[in-house]
Amino acid sequence: MPFGDRTMPLPQLDAALSYLDGDLENALERLFHLMRYQSVSTDPAYASECRRAAEWIAGDLAGIGFEARVAETPGHPITIAHHEGAVPGAPHLLFYGHYDVQPADPLELWEGSPFAPELRKREDGSHYIHGRGASDDKGQLMTFVEACRAWKAATGTLPCCITILIEGEEESGGESLPAFLNAHRDELGADIALICDTSMFDPETPAITTVLRGNVAEQVTIHAAARDLHSGLYGGAAQNPIHVLTRILAEMHDTDGKITIPHFHDGVSEPDPAIRAQWEKLPFSAEHFLGEVGLARPAGERGRSVLEQIWARPTAEVNGIWGGYTGEGFKTVIPAEASAKISFRLVGDQDPEHVREAFREFVRDRLPPDCRAEFLARGGGRATAMKLDNPIFEKARRALSEEWEREAAFIGSGGSIPVVSLLKERLGMESLLIGFGNDDDRIHSPNEKYELKSFQKGMRSWARVLAALAA
Amino acid sequence: MPFGDRTMPLPQLDAALSYLDGDLENALERLFHLMRYQSVSTDPAYASECRRAAEWIAGDLAGIGFEARVAETPGHPITIAHHEGAVPGAPHLLFYGHYDVQPADPLELWEGSPFAPELRKREDGSHYIHGRGASDDKGQLMTFVEACRAWKAATGTLPCCITILIEGEEESGGESLPAFLNAHRDELGADIALICDTSMFDPETPAITTVLRGNVAEQVTIHAAARDLHSGLYGGAAQNPIHVLTRILAEMHDTDGKITIPHFHDGVSEPDPAIRAQWEKLPFSAEHFLGEVGLARPAGERGRSVLEQIWARPTAEVNGIWGGYTGEGFKTVIPAEASAKISFRLVGDQDPEHVREAFREFVRDRLPPDCRAEFLARGGGRATAMKLDNPIFEKARRALSEEWEREAAFIGSGGSIPVVSLLKERLGMESLLIGFGNDDDRIHSPNEKYELKSFQKGMRSWARVLAALAA
Repeated sequence: MPFGDRTMPLPQLDAALSYLDGDLENALERLFHLMRYQSVSTDPAYASECRRAAEWIAGDLAGIGFEARVAETPGHPITIAHHEGAVPGAPHLLFYGHYDVQPADPLELWEGSPFAPELRKREDGSHYIHGRGASDDKGQLMTFVEACRAWKAATGTLPCCITILIEGEEESGGESLPAFLNAHRDELGADIALICDTSMFDPETPAITTVLRGNVAEQVTIHAAARDLHSGLYGGAAQNPIHVLTRILAEMHDTDGKITIPHFHDGVSEPDPAIRAQWEKLPFSAEHFLGEVGLARPAGERGRSVLEQIWARPTAEVNGIWGGYTGEGFKTVIPAEASAKISFRLVGDQDPEHVREAFREFVRDRLPPDCRAEFLARGGGRATAMKLDNPIFEKARRALSEEWEREAAFIGSGGSIPVVSLLKERLGMESLLIGFGNDDDRIHSPNEKYELKSFQKGMRSWARVLAALAA
Repeated sequence: MPFGDRTMPLPQLDAALSYLDGDLENALERLFHLMRYQSVSTDPAYASECRRAAEWIAGDLAGIGFEARVAETPGHPITIAHHEGAVPGAPHLLFYGHYDVQPADPLELWEGSPFAPELRKREDGSHYIHGRGASDDKGQLMTFVEACRAWKAATGTLPCCITILIEGEEESGGESLPAFLNAHRDELGADIALICDTSMFDPETPAITTVLRGNVAEQVTIHAAARDLHSGLYGGAAQNPIHVLTRILAEMHDTDGKITIPHFHDGVSEPDPAIRAQWEKLPFSAEHFLGEVGLARPAGERGRSVLEQIWARPTAEVNGIWGGYTGEGFKTVIPAEASAKISFRLVGDQDPEHVREAFREFVRDRLPPDCRAEFLARGGGRATAMKLDNPIFEKARRALSEEWEREAAFIGSGGSIPVVSLLKERLGMESLLIGFGNDDDRIHSPNEKYELKSFQKGMRSWARVLAALAA
């Protein structure tokens, strides 16, 4: 039984775990405080809220004993903190999280206020934390912070040397981070990065994410006439940019759900056979996964399982579209322009800039006379597949399995965490992705939540992982 | 020479024309006053502005000597006014106009304020009236009101018995008018309707519009998942309603620009050969018409002239589209829904409700699993072709030709004026459509304007038409 096979039967670990259990109420209050900052990074109106969140975290880490500061960037600031470790030869860890959150709109769909976090109880007695950022990523990052606090309180120190980096542009393209990593290469160097921004395999089964899709995002505007036109006077003769845009976007997928953009698939590869074999054994239910959000049938590439569709295949999704009159009532206008936001998920060796250029070419090739396309580049990052031969993965897996009394899984994730490829490229660092989110956390949606169980056992998990890695 | 061949050499007409010339400054001030009301009918926020506009018009007409009142409807009120005529046997005329205007957005594209009207001068010395409603329809309707004022002031009475109906929902579906016409059938009965809501053939050539497209408008929302989804976690497996919507809208036209909706073309007919022959002789330049709005090539049905495309062929135009995240920055969301506003222009005997149902069927037939479509009906009206054997058309044409010293044209219009078919259906009345707009008036767009020449010669034209019809 691996669950009983403790890697490091430390009395200190037990003391840290006890501390966490006893301090839960305070830990929740700290998380709620952080969640009250409306740190929406994509909207400049909330810049000061982002800064306040960064400063609060620096203060909290300083209180634990970290040497902490708020570092400036051209965008939102980054909190950095350092703490020495007690165990000689233990690895130096770089923990990464982000304090920024997605916009809360549509506000009217929230039951309660997105920035007034609450602990809520279900009829079955279980509890969850309600509010924007509960899961992505404030609740998750605080599981690590609380584990550090407990180690420090219970033992006077930390088992490993730890650097913490909490950024504020993860939800908005992350444009400041690459240069920041370059400029702080020495300060941020570590043996491995720990990232808490992913999900468990299911509510009972902890997981380490070892395959991540990349992404690249792009905004396109199609321009036609020099001004909005009356659809009665000009309709039938004048180019309508909404028509042009819908036609081009509709052509991105064929009837089998495959992306048709030439050169888009350059670098796409199938996942490692060992990884795929493990995925096939996972008790994944496509019906349940889709059913939970009101869907019954996979809408993606024909001939691929749902797990492949979300973990191992590239995508092209229109995330937003707008043009013409969209208010109350009606306006019979042929607009001068129409726009869309499109993001691509990448796998294998797909290059974000190559994909961006392929998309732009695809659009340009389809432009009728009198139309022009304007593009706006948004951030991007490559897909990642971890090298599992690093013993750290197995140590962490055992620590997780102990806490959850269930064999932890190595899983994929359809989401993109650009920092993973950045850390690899810029600092040569592998990442250990451990998160306690659930698929129904509604991250990026109204009524985001985080299970109290995720928060509680997440903190305990990190306390154990720190012990395991120090051993 | 028809221009010199006066049908009614009245000293009264000369007196009325002189009065108009002397009172221009006051007439402009009255128009500006009306234009300052932000009577945007489609947005409930401006309901009180609509009412104030209706009341001001009633007051102005009462001042001329009309028996005027503001009548309630379930929507915006309607101004009605009556005045007896002096010439025995002269026809009873029903003048129709609308005090409501299109929304002013996008506000940032206006040079100046949309509701602070001004007379502006060009370098060539010509003047124009700048502001929302300048042309559509406040400036136009006031040409008729001023003609009545001048007749009254110069002669003490009006040559014909005149009823005036000014409604406030022309730009927002006109839902109150049909029931209102039914309920006031006796009060509104007249020999012919006069409508001032159309354009001249070109800036020098007055026109009577004898063929009008109909229209029908529809809003559709495609629903997929029960909530917004994270495009990383669900992308590739979950249905994206923006994709569904763009695919369906893109299929509405084939590569020749023809509408593909089954049964859509039921009732479409070619225009009367005599009308078409007259159109072919008009000095219409497609290059100029399109070039003026920054376009070079007709984008409509292949094999049709631009005049046919805009006057004689049906259309399907997406007037607005929206879905997902459309704010600043980026949000990698698969939205739960996506929407569009679509309007159709109708010709011949196309039935608006039949077209609406054909469109809905077209959408439903293309819905993939897990999606549903929600429809919202907007107003509609049939196309109209006037019977030109009524001698009133020829009398009016002569009066116009005299004022502009140029043979007036019988033209078509791509725009829809639903009241024309309503008056025909409900009150059995033909309409005489005379307007002084220009194609570059930017109605429905930022920086709407009306030529001072249109306003001035428009008033004089109506003074002449009243005399001609009374003769």
